[in-house]
Amino acid sequence: MSETTDIQLSPKSSHGRVFEDFRLGEVIEHANPRTIGEGDVSLYHALTGNRFTLQVSDPFARDVGYHSAPIDDLLIFNIVFGQSVPEISHNAIANLGYAEVDFLSQLYVGETIRARSQVIGLKENSSGESGVVYVRTEGLDNRGVPILRFVRWVMVPTRAGTAASGKSGTGEDRVPDLAARVEPLTIPRHRLNKFWTDRDTGSPHRWEDYHQGEAIDHIDGVTIEEAEHMMASRLYQNDSRTHFDGHAMKSTPFGRRIVQGGHIISIARALTHNGLANACIVSAIHGARHANPTFAGDTLYAWTSVLEKQELDRRTDIGALRLRTTATKNMPCARFPRLPDQKGAGQPDGETENIVLELDYTVILPRR
Amino acid sequence: MSETTDIQLSPKSSHGRVFEDFRLGEVIEHANPRTIGEGDVSLYHALTGNRFTLQVSDPFARDVGYHSAPIDDLLIFNIVFGQSVPEISHNAIANLGYAEVDFLSQLYVGETIRARSQVIGLKENSSGESGVVYVRTEGLDNRGVPILRFVRWVMVPTRAGTAASGKSGTGEDRVPDLAARVEPLTIPRHRLNKFWTDRDTGSPHRWEDYHQGEAIDHIDGVTIEEAEHMMASRLYQNDSRTHFDGHAMKSTPFGRRIVQGGHIISIARALTHNGLANACIVSAIHGARHANPTFAGDTLYAWTSVLEKQELDRRTDIGALRLRTTATKNMPCARFPRLPDQKGAGQPDGETENIVLELDYTVILPRR
Amino acid sequence: MSETTDIQLSPKSSHGRVFEDFRLGEVIEHANPRTIGEGDVSLYHALTGNRFTLQVSDPFARDVGYHSAPIDDLLIFNIVFGQSVPEISHNAIANLGYAEVDFLSQLYVGETIRARSQVIGLKENSSGESGVVYVRTEGLDNRGVPILRFVRWVMVPTRAGTAASGKSGTGEDRVPDLAARVEPLTIPRHRLNKFWTDRDTGSPHRWEDYHQGEAIDHIDGVTIEEAEHMMASRLYQNDSRTHFDGHAMKSTPFGRRIVQGGHIISIARALTHNGLANACIVSAIHGARHANPTFAGDTLYAWTSVLEKQELDRRTDIGALRLRTTATKNMPCARFPRLPDQKGAGQPDGETENIVLELDYTVILPRR
Repeated sequence: MSETTDIQLSPKSSHGRVFEDFRLGEVIEHANPRTIGEGDVSLYHALTGNRFTLQVSDPFARDVGYHSAPIDDLLIFNIVFGQSVPEISHNAIANLGYAEVDFLSQLYVGETIRARSQVIGLKENSSGESGVVYVRTEGLDNRGVPILRFVRWVMVPTRAGTAASGKSGTGEDRVPDLAARVEPLTIPRHRLNKFWTDRDTGSPHRWEDYHQGEAIDHIDGVTIEEAEHMMASRLYQNDSRTHFDGHAMKSTPFGRRIVQGGHIISIARALTHNGLANACIVSAIHGARHANPTFAGDTLYAWTSVLEKQELDRRTDIGALRLRTTATKNMPCARFPRLPDQKGAGQPDGETENIVLELDYTVILPRR
Repeated sequence: MSETTDIQLSPKSSHGRVFEDFRLGEVIEHANPRTIGEGDVSLYHALTGNRFTLQVSDPFARDVGYHSAPIDDLLIFNIVFGQSVPEISHNAIANLGYAEVDFLSQLYVGETIRARSQVIGLKENSSGESGVVYVRTEGLDNRGVPILRFVRWVMVPTRAGTAASGKSGTGEDRVPDLAARVEPLTIPRHRLNKFWTDRDTGSPHRWEDYHQGEAIDHIDGVTIEEAEHMMASRLYQNDSRTHFDGHAMKSTPFGRRIVQGGHIISIARALTHNGLANACIVSAIHGARHANPTFAGDTLYAWTSVLEKQELDRRTDIGALRLRTTATKNMPCARFPRLPDQKGAGQPDGETENIVLELDYTVILPRR
Repeated sequence: MSETTDIQLSPKSSHGRVFEDFRLGEVIEHANPRTIGEGDVSLYHALTGNRFTLQVSDPFARDVGYHSAPIDDLLIFNIVFGQSVPEISHNAIANLGYAEVDFLSQLYVGETIRARSQVIGLKENSSGESGVVYVRTEGLDNRGVPILRFVRWVMVPTRAGTAASGKSGTGEDRVPDLAARVEPLTIPRHRLNKFWTDRDTGSPHRWEDYHQGEAIDHIDGVTIEEAEHMMASRLYQNDSRTHFDGHAMKSTPFGRRIVQGGHIISIARALTHNGLANACIVSAIHGARHANPTFAGDTLYAWTSVLEKQELDRRTDIGALRLRTTATKNMPCARFPRLPDQKGAGQPDGETENIVLELDYTVILPRR
């Protein structure tokens, strides 16, 4: 290319960070604060199918004590996650997990969300080609008050892993201790059950009606399209190339774009409406396993196991349920499939590879 | 699956109703009231192509007497319809028809819509495997005032039709009398023609310019994609599996998802803009025949026949047109195709199967 | 078709204009004024990936002197362009170019946009089957104040070119002189750099840091889907059949729908964020060449050459950069591909056909 010789290459665009770019204890202020508008909320509902009444009806929300319909917790989670992608996981080989997801407050349309992360763990892999980075990420509202906290860990390449040269390693190996569960924190101050209308939510089942060990097949299936998951990822400000660059993804083992894991969580949550319609608030996520990738054309189903019932301190109006929601692709959940290594149980052939998500989380429901 | 033995199956998720679950006279309050936001309206326009000026321009709407641009009548129709799906037609074998669709008022962004239905007819089919349920559904605004009424009838399976056992029948056969037409009710109180600007609507054609028997080819075609009709169905709160579950639909005769009939009506209405741009208000739907299913990848076209011109009582500023809009797939309408059994007329081979909709409805236009 | 004999064909729907329908000097008031709502802005961001901080964060916009986040300049450009399509380019054989695109002010949610065009040039092609129409189009806000001006020229068929008969030609050949560049006019009155936060934009690079000849590879790629470009075209009010009518497009040489050129500009602009995140304002477009069509499934990449640095009169807080952004399909831009005829330079085989856009425009950045 004749002009190339005159071109002065610019270092201003970002290829994302490699393992050596992270320092233990470092705080990263993420860019791209975003004001959440009515249109963002409408898009979220149109892309996920979310229809929990508290998030879609202003009068219902006001009746039970809110200012108006709050923004869905998982939309906020996905946005804060997405805002952290450019500095944390743009080059991620794998998003290995998250834990200690605390939802700290509920937000309304018009709020502006930003994110910051602290590096809390680093561990180089023995190959020297990659390492695991642990960060604690906080979402902040426009006054700088934390609204969400979570830990996640990702495998990123080392410089040696991206090029054939370069000294590798940060010399700072440390793996943080992570809590296996989070106490639910998004607990509304007002009495939630007084004006709660089951007719509006469509379910007569309050906290008292669920019991440990109960297994709920959510029945419905929903197929995902490329246009939908890309619009959702843009809404979440997640710019990872795995979701957008179909040309580059052709040369990966999958041969195609991957649906963003957080969007799978949102869709699985939306599917749980059929059976858990009164569980309008997500207060914590204790862990999430993305067991297999999801591609456009896959149809998602879900079922939920009630792991635990929790009374909440000094609250007789609401209670918490710890749930495990399993999402599958191209296989309904009537047989309640599980991943084998959680309890060491064997699985019928072919089921495990259809499981895309196991989500361990806590929801709040009104009591009678 | 080893864990299955411990699982306590939950009855909390809904498989929808079968024929025996309906009782004549029963009133069903539908769940999921929804506040319509600016984003919902934007999505509707982006998914249907609706561009009637009254619904997209606040200044135009204010000039002719409205508070601001009202929400499109068919978006409200689709939402009220969608809200009734879980209890009425979740298991529908066929949506057989609707009639007496009265639009009672015009709504603005911020309104919350809910729905309730009364069972007004029941008729078991001779096979004992299915029956027809007739309901009158009302959409209500947030004060509980009716904003829309319609009758629809659907074929649903009996319990015998879903399982091989079970006593069938409700013992309450009754088919309601339905009006062949509805008097237009959404008639604005203010004088609509005084500040109506044809320059804004793009059409110089007022009520006086249309005549009975006139046939308008709307010319333009629009192809529908899976992502679009699923986003639209979620916007309409319609959760029927036929629109979302591509995996389950593979084992049906069609082998794929079906585009929701109400979305076809919305797209056909949007296509009529080219030729009927001043017909900004739909005041009634007298009947709709979904003659063939539409699938992603199909291209829709439409033409309209002016069935009748109606003067409105004590109103010299506006008039009504009763129209029949025919929508086709993958075949332009320059030859004005019709369904054969409406007037018993013969059809050229192959045209009938390309007709997807005949919509009999009334619109309001300004006079000179 | 038996009924056809009774049908009175209506002339009310539009097939668009042919060459003979234009008169030199004629002013065309376009229809379909549109109020831009929050939902339209959300959709634009979800469809293009635009994430320039000024347009997505209200607090950031207020900090630097705006009322709230202004509507993206290119969304306004695309809407004004789209509003002019029915009368100007509905039948366009080719959109040949545009120039002198002046952005005159910044708009906020709630504004209503309309468009008008004046015919400033006409030139019949020697074949007699088509001609080139030059128009100067203005976007107007709701008080009628111009907010955007541009010139574009399109090739449209003559009546002879659409049918085999009919006298051709307007007898008014005239080609207007067009400026090769526009002085930037969208220059905020307030001091932009005082409270500009690089942490929010994610880039430390101010106007001083860019230099003439610098070449920025924007790295990221984004695949376009049919549903996305059709939703975008509806948002832009662009109803050209080339974007919507998949059935008709099957019989064209391309065999399929074409992505609207303005949407390609918007996506290319969004891609430049990686490397130009502080270039939040587009003040002028000097020219755009749509070198090849883009289809659903194509992946877009972009790179930018800094053509010129401009100081702005009496402004030490901001400066302008004249840029040339090149967008490619299915080929990353690491080798900085160019169209051959701009500077007569040769190209490696196969690269030219992957170039879809060269955009020559001016952006405003804060200085230190």
